[in-house]
Amino acid sequence: MRKPGSRAEKGKKYFLKQRYGAYYDRLAPRPGKAPGERIPREDAELTHVGPGTPCGEYLRRFWQPCALSKEVQDRPKAIKILDEQLVLFRDRSGQLGCLELHCSHRGTSLEFGVPQERGIRCCYHGWLFDVDGTVLDTPTEAADSRLKEKLFHPAYPTHEHSGLIFIYMGPPERKPPFPIFDTYEVPGYHVMTGIPHVVPCNWLQLKENTADPIHIPILHQRISGHHFSGYRFDDSQMPEFDWVETPLGMISGLVGRSQDVVWVRWSEWIMPNIHQFHITESAGDCVVGTFCPPRATRWHVPVDNTHTIIFDYQRLLDKELDRAEAVLKSMGQRGDRPYEEQQRRPGDYEAQVSQRPIAIHALEHLGASDRGVILFRKLLRQQIRAVQSGKDPRGLQAMNGRPIATYLRNTSFVVPPKRDAAEDRKLWRELARKVAEEALGDSESRWKAKITTMPYQGAKSEFSG
Amino acid sequence: MRKPGSRAEKGKKYFLKQRYGAYYDRLAPRPGKAPGERIPREDAELTHVGPGTPCGEYLRRFWQPCALSKEVQDRPKAIKILDEQLVLFRDRSGQLGCLELHCSHRGTSLEFGVPQERGIRCCYHGWLFDVDGTVLDTPTEAADSRLKEKLFHPAYPTHEHSGLIFIYMGPPERKPPFPIFDTYEVPGYHVMTGIPHVVPCNWLQLKENTADPIHIPILHQRISGHHFSGYRFDDSQMPEFDWVETPLGMISGLVGRSQDVVWVRWSEWIMPNIHQFHITESAGDCVVGTFCPPRATRWHVPVDNTHTIIFDYQRLLDKELDRAEAVLKSMGQRGDRPYEEQQRRPGDYEAQVSQRPIAIHALEHLGASDRGVILFRKLLRQQIRAVQSGKDPRGLQAMNGRPIATYLRNTSFVVPPKRDAAEDRKLWRELARKVAEEALGDSESRWKAKITTMPYQGAKSEFSG
Amino acid sequence: MRKPGSRAEKGKKYFLKQRYGAYYDRLAPRPGKAPGERIPREDAELTHVGPGTPCGEYLRRFWQPCALSKEVQDRPKAIKILDEQLVLFRDRSGQLGCLELHCSHRGTSLEFGVPQERGIRCCYHGWLFDVDGTVLDTPTEAADSRLKEKLFHPAYPTHEHSGLIFIYMGPPERKPPFPIFDTYEVPGYHVMTGIPHVVPCNWLQLKENTADPIHIPILHQRISGHHFSGYRFDDSQMPEFDWVETPLGMISGLVGRSQDVVWVRWSEWIMPNIHQFHITESAGDCVVGTFCPPRATRWHVPVDNTHTIIFDYQRLLDKELDRAEAVLKSMGQRGDRPYEEQQRRPGDYEAQVSQRPIAIHALEHLGASDRGVILFRKLLRQQIRAVQSGKDPRGLQAMNGRPIATYLRNTSFVVPPKRDAAEDRKLWRELARKVAEEALGDSESRWKAKITTMPYQGAKSEFSG
Repeated sequence: MRKPGSRAEKGKKYFLKQRYGAYYDRLAPRPGKAPGERIPREDAELTHVGPGTPCGEYLRRFWQPCALSKEVQDRPKAIKILDEQLVLFRDRSGQLGCLELHCSHRGTSLEFGVPQERGIRCCYHGWLFDVDGTVLDTPTEAADSRLKEKLFHPAYPTHEHSGLIFIYMGPPERKPPFPIFDTYEVPGYHVMTGIPHVVPCNWLQLKENTADPIHIPILHQRISGHHFSGYRFDDSQMPEFDWVETPLGMISGLVGRSQDVVWVRWSEWIMPNIHQFHITESAGDCVVGTFCPPRATRWHVPVDNTHTIIFDYQRLLDKELDRAEAVLKSMGQRGDRPYEEQQRRPGDYEAQVSQRPIAIHALEHLGASDRGVILFRKLLRQQIRAVQSGKDPRGLQAMNGRPIATYLRNTSFVVPPKRDAAEDRKLWRELARKVAEEALGDSESRWKAKITTMPYQGAKSEFSG
Repeated sequence: MRKPGSRAEKGKKYFLKQRYGAYYDRLAPRPGKAPGERIPREDAELTHVGPGTPCGEYLRRFWQPCALSKEVQDRPKAIKILDEQLVLFRDRSGQLGCLELHCSHRGTSLEFGVPQERGIRCCYHGWLFDVDGTVLDTPTEAADSRLKEKLFHPAYPTHEHSGLIFIYMGPPERKPPFPIFDTYEVPGYHVMTGIPHVVPCNWLQLKENTADPIHIPILHQRISGHHFSGYRFDDSQMPEFDWVETPLGMISGLVGRSQDVVWVRWSEWIMPNIHQFHITESAGDCVVGTFCPPRATRWHVPVDNTHTIIFDYQRLLDKELDRAEAVLKSMGQRGDRPYEEQQRRPGDYEAQVSQRPIAIHALEHLGASDRGVILFRKLLRQQIRAVQSGKDPRGLQAMNGRPIATYLRNTSFVVPPKRDAAEDRKLWRELARKVAEEALGDSESRWKAKITTMPYQGAKSEFSG
Repeated sequence: MRKPGSRAEKGKKYFLKQRYGAYYDRLAPRPGKAPGERIPREDAELTHVGPGTPCGEYLRRFWQPCALSKEVQDRPKAIKILDEQLVLFRDRSGQLGCLELHCSHRGTSLEFGVPQERGIRCCYHGWLFDVDGTVLDTPTEAADSRLKEKLFHPAYPTHEHSGLIFIYMGPPERKPPFPIFDTYEVPGYHVMTGIPHVVPCNWLQLKENTADPIHIPILHQRISGHHFSGYRFDDSQMPEFDWVETPLGMISGLVGRSQDVVWVRWSEWIMPNIHQFHITESAGDCVVGTFCPPRATRWHVPVDNTHTIIFDYQRLLDKELDRAEAVLKSMGQRGDRPYEEQQRRPGDYEAQVSQRPIAIHALEHLGASDRGVILFRKLLRQQIRAVQSGKDPRGLQAMNGRPIATYLRNTSFVVPPKRDAAEDRKLWRELARKVAEEALGDSESRWKAKITTMPYQGAKSEFSG
C-alpha cells in the first residue's frame, strides 16, 4: 500500500469532467477507496487517536486538558479522552487523580467510587486506589493478603493550571515538564477558562481551521455578515494570506485594508493541537499601530475519532468582565442553534462538522489558497512519523525554565492606498511578512527560525457575494 | 452461489413440521442463510438501492420525486435519495439545482450554502456552483487560477411538475424525457400533492402492497373495521382477486358484491415504483355503473435500504377541498399513532413496517393468493437484470409526445346475485376481466398488451373474523 | 484456541507493575485479546445467549419467566427473550400462547394480530395460528387449499404460575415438568410478583451478585449507608463469608456480629438463573433465634447479550401490604435515579451495569474473597459443557411430585463475643456452617449433598471507610 500523502497517491486525484455528472462521480476510482466502496476512507494516519495509533501516540506525548478544575470537586467525573475511558477525582486531602474508569478488581466504574482521605474507593467491594494507581486497600481480603501489592491500577499524571486540569497520557519515562507559554500572563488582561463543549467531528478538521485564514473573509464576513467586528476589511477587496513555519508549528496570516489602515492578523498553531488567535469580535483593544495579544489559547482535544472537546484560556479586559459569559461562548462554535438560523448564518460549527464525522481528504480539491492546510498536514505527518520512528516530537525541547515564546502578532499600519491595486496588495504582503519576521527574530525567542518562503500570487480583487 | 429466485433455491424452502417447534425453526437450514447465521439474508437484488447495486441502477433510470416544490424556496434542502446525500436549492434567478451535498473543495455541506443570482455558494470558502455542477467561482484563488475549469461538482438534472421536484440520477446519456401520465389531468378533479413522509422500512414491502389487493378485505375491512367506505363488500363474502400484466407493469384487481352491485376495483403498478389507486375512503364520486379515475398516483422512493419516502399526487373534487388535509394524510399510513391504537386498529404502516426493516423472503410461505406478489417480484427481477445486461428497462420507450395511457379502471355493475354462490363468483371474475381487457384495448392506448392468464380458484366464501 | 477458563489461559493474567502505568496497561497482551485489539473479549461461553450458543442452549433447558400474567390480556405483547423476538397472547377462550413474532406468511408482526376465539389472526392477510403453532385458517386461500397443513408457525409451550408467565424454549422432547420450589408457599406470607424491569447489561454480572455476599457490607452498608436494616452488622468489623455447593447450585453466606447476636445470612443460587434471598430491608420478621424464610425468589432472564429482565416472587407479611409497592421496587436496582444520586448513593444497579455491557473477565483481578464468584463460574461452565455434550443439566431431575427442597436458612444466635477477635470470628464461621449443614441434611431434602469445603482465612477486622 502506498502511504497516504505520497506523490503517487496524490497523482490519482479524480476530477469529474462532466456537467450533471453525479452518476459517474459516485463510482469513480479514487485513492483510499477499496473495490466496492463508494466513499474513500479517511486518512487514518492523521485522524485516528486511540491507543497505539500513530496520531494517538503523537498526541499522547503532550499534556492535554481534560476538564475544568471546578468540575472535579467532591464527586468523581467520568471522561473520555483519546478514546480512553477515565475518571478524574479529588481525594479529601486535595490530591487530584486520573484513573482508568473501570476498577481493576471486577470492572465497576469508579465514577461511582467514593473519595477518601487518601485515594478513591470503589463502591462495589471497596478497593482503594491512590492517585498514582497504588492499591491502598482491599478490605474484603484477609489481613495478611498480599494481593494489593501485586498490581497497580492504571493511572495518568495530572497537573492543574489556571482552572484547567491537564493529564499526560504518554510513556511515563518520556513525560515532559508542563509547558508555560508567554501568553499565559499578559499585563492588563484577565485569564479565564472558556466553557468546554464537545463537537461531533474529528479533531483534525477543527484544527485545520487555524491554518486557514481564508475562511474568515468568506464565512465570517461575506456569508454570515461580519462575525468579527475588529478587522472589518472592505467587502470589495479580498485580503491577502500568508503562512510561516515557526519552531512551535506555524502562523497563518491575513492582511487587508480598510481605508487608510492596513490590518495584519496572524493566528498561531502550536503543535500538536493548540492554537492562539485574536477574537476580533472583542477587538476594542486593537489601537491602530500597536500590537495586540492573542485573546485565546485553544486546545482541540480528541474525545474519540469522531468527537472533539474544546478547552481554552481567554483573556479579557476589565471592561469586558460584565459580559464575560457571552464572550466566552464563541460565536458560531456550538451546535445548539435552531436549524434555520444555522442555515441563514452558518459559523465554524456548521462549516466544519458538516465536512462529515471524519472529513475525507481523497474527495477534496485543494487550490493555491489551501497551501496553509497542505503545510499543516505535512508538518503534522512529519511529527507523527518522527514519533513512530522513536524520536521526540517538536515542541518538547522547548521548556527550559522560563515561559515559552510564541509568535502571534497582530497590528496595523496607517498607510494610504497605492494607486495600482496590485502594488497595494504587494505592500500588504510585505507588511505582514515584516511583522512575522520581527516576531521570529524577537530577542525573547530562544530559536531563530528559518522562514519558509511561500510566494502567493494574490487573491482576486473582486468578489461578488 | 445460486441466484435468488431460481427454482433450485425455491426448492429448499423450509417448512416447520412440528407443533411447539420454535426451537427447531431457529436453527433450520434455509436459503439465503450462511452457516452460523440465524436469520436468512434479505434478497439484495430486489432491495438494495445504493449506487452500483442492481436494483439501485434500475431505479436510477427513471425520474424520481424527491421534494415538494414549496419546500425549496430561499434556503437549500438536504435530502437523501437512493442512499445518496444531496442538496436541492433554487438560485435567485429561479433555477432549480440538485447537487452532491458535500462541497467539492473541502467537503462542507451545501445545505449551509447561500443561493446566489446564479448558483449556490459554499459557506466555508465561497466556491460557487451552477445547477449543472459548473464551478463558477473560487473566490480565494488568484484571479488567473484555472482550478475551477478542471472539475465539475456532481449534479443531477431536475424537473418540476405540479408541485413536485423530480431528479434523474441515472447515466446522463440515457436520460429519458419526463413522463406525463394520462391521469395527470382529469376533468373535474384538482391535483394536489400529498404530505410526504418517511417510512422506516425497505421500499419493496411498501410497493408490494400494490400487487396485493388481498390485504384490503382483511386488514382494512375485517381487522380494522372498514377503513374504506367506498367499496364496502359484504363481510360475509371474501372478494375475488385478479392480476393482469400491462405494458407499464401490472394491475391488481378486487371484485366483490354488495347486494345488487358488483364492484370492480383495480390498482395499477407503473414500473418501477409508482402506483395508482382509488382511495375508496373518499369514493363519493363512484356512481354505480360509471368509471371513476384513480384518486392517487404514488411514488415510494427509497431513501436508503431501510427507509422510504412517499410522495403522491391526489385528485380531489370541489366538495372535498374543505377537508383536503385529512384526505391527503392517508389513513393508517403513518407511524405517529399511540401504540395501543396501532395495536387495536392496525393499518398499512403497522403491517408493512413490522415485516422487519427489510422483509426476509426466505422466511415467507406464499400461497395461491400471493400470486400477485410473486408476479410483481418476477417482473421486477426481469427488469433489474435487463438493465444489468445493458438493456433499457420497460417504460422508458413510452414517451412519444402525448400523455402515457394508464390502465386502472374502477367501476360497478348492477346485477342481482346468482343463486349458486360459485356461479356468482365466476360472474364477478368475468366482469373484472372484462374491465381490464377494455382498458388494455382502449383506443387511446399505444400498446396492445397480452393478458397474462392467471386462473384463480376463488377464495373461500366464509370467513370467521 | 485454548478454552477460556483453562489453567493455561489463566496463567497469562496481566498485572500492571507500574505507578502511573495506564500507558502500558492499554497495550499489554492479555488472554482473550486478539492482536490489535485494546480490550479483551468477553467470555462468550458464559455470556452469549442466542439460539445455538452454549450458554443459550443451557438456559433453554429450563422454564423461564417472560411476563406478568396481567400484562397479557386482550392485546398481544411483543417480548424478546434469549435474543428471540416473540409474541405472547391470550385467545378469547383463555388459552395462552407464545409464538415467533413474525407471521409465517409474510413476516408482519403478530403484536398487531387480533386474538380470536381460538388462536391469533395476523392483521395483514388474516392467517390464524393456534397456541401450539397450528395454522388454523388462511382465509384468502381457496377453500380446498392445503397450504395450512404444510407448516406450523414456530411456538413455545407456556405455563402460568402465581402471576408469572413462563415459557420453555428448549428441545420439545426434553421439556421438563414445571418446577415448584418449597418456598412458593410459606405460611404467614403473601406471594406477590415484583415489578419487572430491564437492566442494560449481561445476565451473568447480575447473577454473580448472588455468589458475592462480600459486596453487602461494602456497597450496601459502608458506601451507601445501610441499605438493609435487618442485618446491621457493626461497622467496625467486616463479616465473615462462606460458600457451600448444593444439589441445586450453591449458597453464599455472610455472618457477623451485632453486640450479643451473631447473624447468619445465606443466599441461594438455584441453577441456572434463579436466586433466593432475604430482603434485609424488610427484616421485621427476623426474630432472634428463629429461622426466617427467603423473602424473594428472583430470575435474571437474558433479553439479549447486553440486556436482562428481572422477575421475582416476593413474600410479604400482612403488615407490609400497605407499602407493597415500595417493597417490590427494590432499592438501588433501577437506573431511573438522577445521576448525582446514583453517584452519592450507588446501589447494585450502578455497581453492576457499570461493569460494562458485558463484563470482561480477562481484565479482573480476583482475590480470596472472590472464591464465590470463581465457584459460581466453574459450576456454570460445567453445566454448559454438560449440555453441550448431550447430557441433561443439573436441576432437571429434581421434580418428582412434591415441592423441591431449597437450602436457604437465615437465623441468628445469642452468644456474647469471645475476648479474642480471631476466636470470635472462628465461632461465627462455625455457626454459619452449622446452619448450612442442617439445611443440607434436612429430612425434607431428597439429596444428601457433599459440602465443598472452602477454608477462608477471614477478612480483616478493621475497615476505614
